[in-house]
Amino acid sequence: MVRSHISISNVVALIFFLVLHIIPSVQSTTATTIDVWPKPRLVRWAPQHQLSLLSPSFTIAPPYDHPHLSSAVARYLTLIKTEHHLPSSVNNPSTATLSLPPPQPLQALHIMIHRLYAPLHHGVNESYTLHIPSDHPTANLTAETPWGAMRGLETFSQLVWGRPSRVPVGVYVWDDPIFAHRGLLLDTSRNYYGVGDIMRTIYAMSANKMNVFHWHITDSHSFPLNLPSEPGLAAKGSYGDDMQYSPDDVKKIVEFGLDHGVRVIPEIDSPGHTGSWAEAYPEIVTCANMFWWPAESKGEDKLAAEPGTGQLNPLNPKTYQVFKNVISDVVKMFPEPFFHAGADEVTPGCWKTDPTIQSFLSNGGSLSQVLEKFVNETFPYIASLNRTVIYWEDVLLDGVVKVDSSILDPKYTILQTWNNGPNNTKKIVDAGYRAIVSSADYYYLDCGHGGFLGNDSQYDQLVSSDTASKGGSWCAPFKTWQTIYNYDITYGLSEEKAKLVLGGEVALWSEQADPTVLDSRLWPRTSAMAEALWSGNRDETGKKRYAEATDRLNEWRHRMVSRGIGAEPIQPLWCVRNPGMCNTVHASI
Amino acid sequence: MVRSHISISNVVALIFFLVLHIIPSVQSTTATTIDVWPKPRLVRWAPQHQLSLLSPSFTIAPPYDHPHLSSAVARYLTLIKTEHHLPSSVNNPSTATLSLPPPQPLQALHIMIHRLYAPLHHGVNESYTLHIPSDHPTANLTAETPWGAMRGLETFSQLVWGRPSRVPVGVYVWDDPIFAHRGLLLDTSRNYYGVGDIMRTIYAMSANKMNVFHWHITDSHSFPLNLPSEPGLAAKGSYGDDMQYSPDDVKKIVEFGLDHGVRVIPEIDSPGHTGSWAEAYPEIVTCANMFWWPAESKGEDKLAAEPGTGQLNPLNPKTYQVFKNVISDVVKMFPEPFFHAGADEVTPGCWKTDPTIQSFLSNGGSLSQVLEKFVNETFPYIASLNRTVIYWEDVLLDGVVKVDSSILDPKYTILQTWNNGPNNTKKIVDAGYRAIVSSADYYYLDCGHGGFLGNDSQYDQLVSSDTASKGGSWCAPFKTWQTIYNYDITYGLSEEKAKLVLGGEVALWSEQADPTVLDSRLWPRTSAMAEALWSGNRDETGKKRYAEATDRLNEWRHRMVSRGIGAEPIQPLWCVRNPGMCNTVHASI
Repeated sequence: MVRSHISISNVVALIFFLVLHIIPSVQSTTATTIDVWPKPRLVRWAPQHQLSLLSPSFTIAPPYDHPHLSSAVARYLTLIKTEHHLPSSVNNPSTATLSLPPPQPLQALHIMIHRLYAPLHHGVNESYTLHIPSDHPTANLTAETPWGAMRGLETFSQLVWGRPSRVPVGVYVWDDPIFAHRGLLLDTSRNYYGVGDIMRTIYAMSANKMNVFHWHITDSHSFPLNLPSEPGLAAKGSYGDDMQYSPDDVKKIVEFGLDHGVRVIPEIDSPGHTGSWAEAYPEIVTCANMFWWPAESKGEDKLAAEPGTGQLNPLNPKTYQVFKNVISDVVKMFPEPFFHAGADEVTPGCWKTDPTIQSFLSNGGSLSQVLEKFVNETFPYIASLNRTVIYWEDVLLDGVVKVDSSILDPKYTILQTWNNGPNNTKKIVDAGYRAIVSSADYYYLDCGHGGFLGNDSQYDQLVSSDTASKGGSWCAPFKTWQTIYNYDITYGLSEEKAKLVLGGEVALWSEQADPTVLDSRLWPRTSAMAEALWSGNRDETGKKRYAEATDRLNEWRHRMVSRGIGAEPIQPLWCVRNPGMCNTVHASI
Repeated sequence: MVRSHISISNVVALIFFLVLHIIPSVQSTTATTIDVWPKPRLVRWAPQHQLSLLSPSFTIAPPYDHPHLSSAVARYLTLIKTEHHLPSSVNNPSTATLSLPPPQPLQALHIMIHRLYAPLHHGVNESYTLHIPSDHPTANLTAETPWGAMRGLETFSQLVWGRPSRVPVGVYVWDDPIFAHRGLLLDTSRNYYGVGDIMRTIYAMSANKMNVFHWHITDSHSFPLNLPSEPGLAAKGSYGDDMQYSPDDVKKIVEFGLDHGVRVIPEIDSPGHTGSWAEAYPEIVTCANMFWWPAESKGEDKLAAEPGTGQLNPLNPKTYQVFKNVISDVVKMFPEPFFHAGADEVTPGCWKTDPTIQSFLSNGGSLSQVLEKFVNETFPYIASLNRTVIYWEDVLLDGVVKVDSSILDPKYTILQTWNNGPNNTKKIVDAGYRAIVSSADYYYLDCGHGGFLGNDSQYDQLVSSDTASKGGSWCAPFKTWQTIYNYDITYGLSEEKAKLVLGGEVALWSEQADPTVLDSRLWPRTSAMAEALWSGNRDETGKKRYAEATDRLNEWRHRMVSRGIGAEPIQPLWCVRNPGMCNTVHASI
């Protein structure tokens, strides 16, 4: 992480020793740590660590006239007063007591904001300073914007723990994210997630100081978005009446995002991944509902990267009529200035099934020209609605079907990379585009569960083989939290080019995910990226800090679970209680 | 599956066509299938498939005087009358109607049992026949034992669906498991699971006609079992007062198992995997609480296969005093005639830290002799309590520390295999022992999530490497349901030797699992083994049937979710609604 060294210094872990009443059922006295995840850029402690009780009348002031900040303040006040977090490393929480005589209880957290009406856009200032003095009953949180104040409130909430609630005093925190774009992609087309699932995910993101919910709304499998101008798309293309997002649902989610400092970027993927559009408009979609891999054919004749099939037909004028209605509605529903237009995995075989495209090709046209026509018709339209367009890298880097970079003005275009690790990031920024990194090798949370296709003979083997040992799915293996944590998204770039990397996004594609596994697929692995993009993955000496991060992430996972997020465990509780004892020796020999 | 061909013939899928009122929000008329999982050995339908409504006064009779059967009957009666299952392949369930004019409603299911008091032991007859006539309002379930009747009740419950409830008539089912031992191992030591989690798991097992809950209760990480004769073990070795199983908890679980036709086999692993015993008795455990892999040392000097460490010391007489108290209590708590005594992964480095063992070795003794001493002191004791002892294969097949087969009488010994696929199964049965198959290559449900160790530099790589591509954990990749389904546990054995294979068990070790992910790690993958061991993994022509099983498993997963089991999805809903469309073409070219 090139830029992670700049301001991290003297980041010291805050250690409290909980004096436990030793009773027969309890192991010996345990030392434990209270931490903030993601780790702030700078934390300074008074020489002697001290705790103060939180006054029962503790409050957060002043009441700002800002709908989203007010909502956040109310939420954090409740959380701070009722959470009573106890570290999982403590054996018998009921017996934990204060180790030092507390000074006077903390009465208030005072918030000072310089630019109250700064909108939540890309690059908005999210920095804050938090000072909890040891000699005064009021703490101070100073931020440039309400969004920075929300980050500081989260930090404060994580410092409060125990019953009765206590908080360290003599603490100074300065914090500011390294990367401005810290996102999570959720695919709600392959399987449907309820509004509550999405809101819980945004809530968890804000606890991890993430700020972009990339909503991959539609795909070939279903079209769950109910659009006023094109009601037939969801009516016919969704999985059912009870598996749609109404305009009110979207409004609720967007507002919830703002209340949590999380931007909601919609993705309407096209021209590929549009099979579901064909339920309402079969005439604008090529190869819809065909078997994805024709018998006896080679890989290059596939109709889609995976089932199901379907691509918008750029040579049919009706396509643009429907497309523009869709985009116009979506832009109205999502105030966010970025818009994701997809453009990944355009598959030659699908377009080749269409007679119009066939005749265009036999008259000397190319598939890339077909795509260019589509982009030339749609990109300026989206840009005209004051949107910066995000495309998947394929639009420029695909081996077969791609457009010339001259038609994509870098001023209005951002490319999201997913293939080929650091190499494609470099290609994108070298071409002058801003990049969002979602490398499948590091950030794809769905990988490692094997293939989802039926009738797959590679899983019928009684002797080991190489494909079997790799798990059979294209992006295996499973990305462990350490894999995610250690990825340097600006690896190999000059300092100048690295500035074009806006940040990263983990991605949960839903072939093998739905609400039953949402939380455990996302968390705590997403927390690993959240910290790496917020304050980096290295310590003050420049060494990767994944070893010490293990114990902190165990604790943070425990706290997320108690906050209602079903994060999966990364180690036995024994390891949590015995920090360092479950490390491998690999790194030290 | 050598024995799977014998009696499978004419197993025909029951297909109902639901006539849907076509309304604008619904896709076109959908054909759907009602199925039973695991697929019965034989199902015969009347020439024309017909449905009958279930009478509102439907009942199951007669009331047998059998505590567990009565409990099961009451449970199934409620389920049958209230479930109103609708296949997930139906778009708009509210509009599904009967396709044929129903005959008179079904009034009753009559049960006939030949041997009412047959105990639920290994090999008990679980066969049943179920006949739902088309010309009479009473169905008949005939079984040799109550346990077979429970299997038949489950089948009947899966045939009922819809609102109002309906059931196919003119149906005859004959069923009988191929393998007698169909189990699931859960490790409650590395992480703790509540009694409710265990009961939900047993409930799900019974829905899948599985019959053995292998409870890996204790290990090095925690000792959650509260024993009357040795209360200190749990008091000091559990994760806390709220993470223990009391004798009443065990009784509840054992009874719940009997109510569901599931035996509960306890495992007290020893002499390895006993670090938690050291909290109460440090003097009987070697190398406890030491770092598991001494710095600068090679793999062969490790103190344990993984953290944490600790092995019972066979040269300390006190060991046997504690051990016998433990076993004596456990045998009283678990009526089951099988007892699992562990004996896996005895690690040389751990015993070598002990001065007594060191001097035994320097006087010409061997580590295998140390283990033989332990087995000679403990095996006859367990056998004397009327228990058949199950050991992990290591006790005989370990490369370094193992006993001579002469001291393990095959009459009282069963070996559970986990290494080396079919090869070790063959070694076990060739040596004359009965085998339970839990091959890590096929049946370990925890694999594929990467390593759980902290500070692991293999996950800090910005270029691909072979270890990284395999996911880094010893038993990667993730075992997909197809991998599990296709495994033939008697592969390569003669018909005679195959009879020594009692069955199989999937295993969930809990390094990276706890209640947050329990259901999704277990289901529906465990269902794949459940069917393969019940009725086989091949169709009547002998061809592996995983292709058609995909659609059936999608449906069964959906039904398990609606029954409260958080099974993970294996495909997008689009694939469920479009059977066969998400198959790979691999098998057909």
